[in-house]
Amino acid sequence: MSMYLDYQAARPVDHRVFEAMKPYFFKDFGNPSSLHQYGFTATNMLDEARRDITKFINAPNPEDIIFTSGATESNNLAIIGGALRNQKKGNHVIISEIEHISILNIAKYLERLGFKVSRVPVDRFGIINLNKLERMITDKTILISISTASNEIGSLQPVESIAKLANEHEIWFHSDAVASEATIPIDVQKVPFDMLTISSNDIYGPRGIGALYLKKGVRVNPIIIGGGQEKGLRSGSENIPGIVGFAKAAEIMKREMEKEASRLKEFRDRLIREILKIPKSHLNGHPEIRTPDNANFRFDYIEGESLLLSLKDEKIAVASGSACSSKTLEPSHTLISCGLLHEEAHGSLLLTVGRFTEEKDINKIVEVLPGIIKRLRILSPLTPSDLLKQLQEEDN
Amino acid sequence: MSMYLDYQAARPVDHRVFEAMKPYFFKDFGNPSSLHQYGFTATNMLDEARRDITKFINAPNPEDIIFTSGATESNNLAIIGGALRNQKKGNHVIISEIEHISILNIAKYLERLGFKVSRVPVDRFGIINLNKLERMITDKTILISISTASNEIGSLQPVESIAKLANEHEIWFHSDAVASEATIPIDVQKVPFDMLTISSNDIYGPRGIGALYLKKGVRVNPIIIGGGQEKGLRSGSENIPGIVGFAKAAEIMKREMEKEASRLKEFRDRLIREILKIPKSHLNGHPEIRTPDNANFRFDYIEGESLLLSLKDEKIAVASGSACSSKTLEPSHTLISCGLLHEEAHGSLLLTVGRFTEEKDINKIVEVLPGIIKRLRILSPLTPSDLLKQLQEEDN
Repeated sequence: MSMYLDYQAARPVDHRVFEAMKPYFFKDFGNPSSLHQYGFTATNMLDEARRDITKFINAPNPEDIIFTSGATESNNLAIIGGALRNQKKGNHVIISEIEHISILNIAKYLERLGFKVSRVPVDRFGIINLNKLERMITDKTILISISTASNEIGSLQPVESIAKLANEHEIWFHSDAVASEATIPIDVQKVPFDMLTISSNDIYGPRGIGALYLKKGVRVNPIIIGGGQEKGLRSGSENIPGIVGFAKAAEIMKREMEKEASRLKEFRDRLIREILKIPKSHLNGHPEIRTPDNANFRFDYIEGESLLLSLKDEKIAVASGSACSSKTLEPSHTLISCGLLHEEAHGSLLLTVGRFTEEKDINKIVEVLPGIIKRLRILSPLTPSDLLKQLQEEDN
Repeated sequence: MSMYLDYQAARPVDHRVFEAMKPYFFKDFGNPSSLHQYGFTATNMLDEARRDITKFINAPNPEDIIFTSGATESNNLAIIGGALRNQKKGNHVIISEIEHISILNIAKYLERLGFKVSRVPVDRFGIINLNKLERMITDKTILISISTASNEIGSLQPVESIAKLANEHEIWFHSDAVASEATIPIDVQKVPFDMLTISSNDIYGPRGIGALYLKKGVRVNPIIIGGGQEKGLRSGSENIPGIVGFAKAAEIMKREMEKEASRLKEFRDRLIREILKIPKSHLNGHPEIRTPDNANFRFDYIEGESLLLSLKDEKIAVASGSACSSKTLEPSHTLISCGLLHEEAHGSLLLTVGRFTEEKDINKIVEVLPGIIKRLRILSPLTPSDLLKQLQEEDN
């Protein structure tokens, strides 16, 4: 299999997580609603897992955690559920221009339901402008949803200031933390999020499970109706193996994050240092204020897709933009918002490192990339003739 | 651990299913949206799994299958999504009185949105009355949702006739098949369902995954908005290990169902034969027209919960009513609809057998149950004094 530098798209499950989940497939497979030993065991595990997730984000109470089927569902519950619940108070929601496609599409859905959505712009590093955010707030604003970090360019948002601003205006602040939860500690008591989306797979837990933190007193309408599980906010028999795996992943991540993030930061910084030596290469996003695992580049005269396919031939798995929009072949909305031209936004290379990245992976990409860029520039119709001539001469 | 006779509440994952899922946790963990080998492998598996599910229900095309997080979500997508999509055509929905609580609550939700919901009654065996169903249909009726079988009393509904009736009136027919999918073959071309809910765990696949079959041309609104996965009807990164497990479970079930169902029917029939020898015991549901895995009894003068707890002391895990409502301690709405009095509806014992049930499990419950019933009747304030006297004499 290929070398993997695309942790933003998907992550392998940690073997320790898998071992923790295993008994819940066969032996302790009960339904928490059952009034017998299998049911009681399931209920105990559900409670214990909820406590682990509570600790992971330093939430005050286990009851603040609602398990969902993943980050997309958590975002739906927070934003659609939150907006519908509070529509009598107001009909205005604010997101950022560079949110993940799931949130951009949720915003469009709200607009079809009659809500007004404002999209706060970002600077050239992909960081939102707090003054502009504040000026967007009206007496009809009920919800601000801005992710902790961009999953594409890694830029960290000033969530503490946003939370403060939202609190001052008595507006609920929701944040999708999936792009930063593997590298930056979450403390919902230090940064007073009203709602926070976290996902299991983004911390090396299984797919198909996530959670929404709801600060005490924050109310949302359910999205999935039924048997009334999760305090009526998320019906459906609980996915106990998934929840146990998520909790184990959170427990490991809490313990190992500091060491792991500093290891990843070294990889990231080496990638940035080495790859920027390639002529006419640029870093997307902020040089410092970014997640420790994200490096995103662009190379003049080169399209992202051709670069991806060339790296695929070298058995290196990378991305160009976020996984969820890469198949559309549209230029990245995030990079366009950062002020890049369409042709620049097409040329990006997104490298994300993770728990199983090794030194040799970094060595390999740093070694092969300059030659690939050179070959692609020789083939590119966009390369200016003087540069083309120089590259062809070097190549002989 | 206890002996398990509560397959309607939860099922262990088959080891063959688990082995099939395993590589997708660690090795082939990619996101189908990624443009590299990990992504392509994930896409291939997703396509292959979709074909397996297609075969399981004999759907015409793999595109008819929408993966969801489970039966509850599938029911939401079908009923809420279907009603919202077609509200211009009409605002009337029909369900049965004995639907699973998830569907009863979905119906209440639709009523709050302004829809009208009719609930078709059942006979004393829990089978819907087709004439009454037909008379409920108006020119505003857009959707009928009636499960293939009751998960509580096992009664099979005349789905073929309902489908025919619905088709004649150009009304969509949705059915939740979870209570019968492990024992009764599904053929959506023979019975022309417009929408069908199936779940993975109910056929010994993992929890947290399910599907909705949508006949070509049937349109619903999405419930979960985002990256546009599953043809835009169910966003969120695909849970590949879960989907692979579900597909493997379906493939095994399709192959083994006939033999397995006949084995389970023997267990069920023996349970019915032996347990009805207990004085003043009754079978709930129909003696013949029921799923091969379901036996549901009531015993005069005895409450379901005390029976459950006595069996728990004997390390036998059973249910009283459906798992999702057992914690409420309300009398079963299903049994009330069958015409039982409140005190009768409180006294039920639900035994469901499955793939891992053995002869000795049946022997055990048949052996211990008469004594438990006798002891509980001696303690019960409801037992008439002449019977009490007789039981006390027998006991000495």
